[in-house]
Amino acid sequence: MDKESEQFLYMQLYEKIKDMILEGLIPYDYKLPTIRALAKQIDVNNITVVNAYNKLEEDGYVYKKIGSGTYVKKIDSLYDQDEIDEEEAELNEILINFASTAPTTNLFPVEEIKESIIEVLNNDKSNAFIYQNPKGYLPLRKSLRDYLSGLGIYTTENSIQIISGAQQGIDIISKALIDFKDIVFTEEFTYTGAIGAFKSRGASTIAINMNEDGIDIDDLKNRLKYNKPKFLYLMPNFHNPTGCSYSVEKMEEILELARIYNFYIIEDDYLSDLEFHGERNTTMKSLDLKEIERVIYIKSFSKLFMPGLRIAFIVIPDELLYDITSAKHISDISTPGLIQRAFNIYMRKGEWDENLKRINKIYDLRHRIMSKAINKYLPENIEYKETRGGFNFWFKLPNGYSSDALYEYLIDRDILIAPGKIFTIDSEDNGYFRLSVTSIDSENIDESFKILSENIKEFLSEQNKPKLTIEDYNKFL
Amino acid sequence: MDKESEQFLYMQLYEKIKDMILEGLIPYDYKLPTIRALAKQIDVNNITVVNAYNKLEEDGYVYKKIGSGTYVKKIDSLYDQDEIDEEEAELNEILINFASTAPTTNLFPVEEIKESIIEVLNNDKSNAFIYQNPKGYLPLRKSLRDYLSGLGIYTTENSIQIISGAQQGIDIISKALIDFKDIVFTEEFTYTGAIGAFKSRGASTIAINMNEDGIDIDDLKNRLKYNKPKFLYLMPNFHNPTGCSYSVEKMEEILELARIYNFYIIEDDYLSDLEFHGERNTTMKSLDLKEIERVIYIKSFSKLFMPGLRIAFIVIPDELLYDITSAKHISDISTPGLIQRAFNIYMRKGEWDENLKRINKIYDLRHRIMSKAINKYLPENIEYKETRGGFNFWFKLPNGYSSDALYEYLIDRDILIAPGKIFTIDSEDNGYFRLSVTSIDSENIDESFKILSENIKEFLSEQNKPKLTIEDYNKFL
Repeated sequence: MDKESEQFLYMQLYEKIKDMILEGLIPYDYKLPTIRALAKQIDVNNITVVNAYNKLEEDGYVYKKIGSGTYVKKIDSLYDQDEIDEEEAELNEILINFASTAPTTNLFPVEEIKESIIEVLNNDKSNAFIYQNPKGYLPLRKSLRDYLSGLGIYTTENSIQIISGAQQGIDIISKALIDFKDIVFTEEFTYTGAIGAFKSRGASTIAINMNEDGIDIDDLKNRLKYNKPKFLYLMPNFHNPTGCSYSVEKMEEILELARIYNFYIIEDDYLSDLEFHGERNTTMKSLDLKEIERVIYIKSFSKLFMPGLRIAFIVIPDELLYDITSAKHISDISTPGLIQRAFNIYMRKGEWDENLKRINKIYDLRHRIMSKAINKYLPENIEYKETRGGFNFWFKLPNGYSSDALYEYLIDRDILIAPGKIFTIDSEDNGYFRLSVTSIDSENIDESFKILSENIKEFLSEQNKPKLTIEDYNKFL
Repeated sequence: MDKESEQFLYMQLYEKIKDMILEGLIPYDYKLPTIRALAKQIDVNNITVVNAYNKLEEDGYVYKKIGSGTYVKKIDSLYDQDEIDEEEAELNEILINFASTAPTTNLFPVEEIKESIIEVLNNDKSNAFIYQNPKGYLPLRKSLRDYLSGLGIYTTENSIQIISGAQQGIDIISKALIDFKDIVFTEEFTYTGAIGAFKSRGASTIAINMNEDGIDIDDLKNRLKYNKPKFLYLMPNFHNPTGCSYSVEKMEEILELARIYNFYIIEDDYLSDLEFHGERNTTMKSLDLKEIERVIYIKSFSKLFMPGLRIAFIVIPDELLYDITSAKHISDISTPGLIQRAFNIYMRKGEWDENLKRINKIYDLRHRIMSKAINKYLPENIEYKETRGGFNFWFKLPNGYSSDALYEYLIDRDILIAPGKIFTIDSEDNGYFRLSVTSIDSENIDESFKILSENIKEFLSEQNKPKLTIEDYNKFL
């Protein structure tokens, strides 16, 4: 402190202490020195300290306990009042969000997982913070083995690899299987993050055409004549982005081809435990033969639980165990033990099943309301295929209209959709778009979709002259 | 229940309730139905329920509160009594562990981080479980920016990327920078996990010879004449495995070459904040020029804090920002928000600095005791270079002796060391070995090293005829 400018000494002291509090050097509920002690120590008058403490109290940095002293207040700025990410802030301004597929915070079972986390902290203590086995925490792998048997998948804890979300699953499988210039097959429309992971490994990716119930078997057979893929990446239940589900017959046909042509199937399952309209879903993994395992099964909890927890798992065919576990080790050694242990307790207490029942009801209701809204409001020149469940709905603009342009048009009106090009390998504008009802509560779906439909109509009429496509040209020639 | 076998009814009831408890269907501290209510509901005599409840109490599944009822006990089996990983169990049988570089659990600041986690759960609630921005939680990036200025590194929160441990840092930088057949330079001896990540990207890795104070500049210059590396991967402070530290002059020389030959330097910093013997360390990033940024700086907290938390960060040169953030997104979308938020609170409360001081003292002491022990007991034909700090010590057997054979010899005697071959690209037996004092308390170092040295002497004498090396042959020719 600069003692030459005597009259401002208390302000200097105030600033110093304020900074120390803001920098976290004095934790909250920590007692400041007594007035006399501090005055003596830094060699100023008592009144200087009194004035500084009063201003600190005035400005909300400290509180006083009568007869006890002055204490540091819990400061909100420690908890990011002014520090919300710009991106997040922008998203919050969106009025209608049909683009997000992440569940909203009001769906999170926060109290239950909090209890599990605190139980782990109390019981496991420092063990919650050691390096976990790269394969994952053994008790959790056992819990997941039991959970899988409920989905008709019978495996052992040794075949289960814990991962930090499904994206990491796709990434480490790519690491283990794809060498430079290897061929990978995907569905015509597929998950953006998977395309990125395959490209990053230098794979040559081929998209197989899709019908209403999944990939076109004839196109697959034809492609297999000329190419030898390392694997085929599929979402057979409530496919993203189209919402379609594969029939069991189609699953069996694909599996048979995988056995004949010796390629793997990555089954990305993010939703199959939901039973829309009470129907149970079949996973491809449950149809996989133990003698000729062809399915690498990725199970994500991000869409049914809490995405920020970053927990998922893979069921790995025996002959790939070493390669995939090594790829996990190279990627990040192991998934945080605390989270694995908490999720294990959460499952063993039966809370996962409870959560599933709750979420099931919510998404089932939203699917029904959205389907009705589509019947009521959808402009008739928009193509749309009904789905039997899930939260994704897939549309196509009339030929010649751009879904990129629609996306831009809507964002100016604070409405968010997912344009079709992000689900393709070549990223070309294709007139498709995806709507999801993950971020829109059931009571708002009808009104939101009505507003969206009106905007789409306006968009179509404003684009006075649609661009001609090659098909259109062909008609004239 | 089978009522035909009347005499065992209470045992049947006991088994049913026991199973429900073990499967987690009845959480602990949950009250069982009253005797009368349950007897009525399942239509048995009261005495059957009394007997079942008594046996449950006897066997430790429930407890009784006088005048209140019967409650489910917390069962240890939920907390993995019988489920320790085989691998972990094996490690626990090792008497002397000179191989591990993970801090032992007694060094973890468990209570402090637990408080921070609970604060986040109480304050941020469901926000702790949303997808975090792939770059990382903004307030944490700001805290790290401030922390870095204490290390002489001046950067902004925008240049900081949060990652799930240093291994992920190496992996995503490799994803962003290495294309198939690209060249990467490393130190002659280097971190195993880095070699794995570079190989996985199809890189061609070249090892640069090392002197006592880091890589040999002449060898580096020579290699640069014929090769164009994407980057040079270095650990300039307390190098792993050799323990050596780079002089500031050497750092400057390497930086100058990086500017001239246009390659990046990955600085892997896992220990530089420690001040052994009160000396401050210089990071290469602090010498990097803002106009021609050449250093990608990875900071790990695993060795100074708690490895299972999986948190670290990268400081990224501007022109690589997009590529490296995209690589993170493809790898696992984002690091768990809960952990980022808890670590942020932990730092802002000043507890990170406290932890560092504490850890500093412990490792400083261990380094001094180990150095003394080496002076006292090391067999004289073993090569060893003194280090100025850290927890790694690097040795070489006399020519012709195998450190793989030594490793095998010692493991039979429950002593663990790290054989030199795991730190090289070609994985060839090279006679070197590394000892670390991370897992051995200071009071045990002297005795442990004494036992190790005696065993090494025995090993050397038992290998009655050392294998001849090429050099030995040359002497005869």
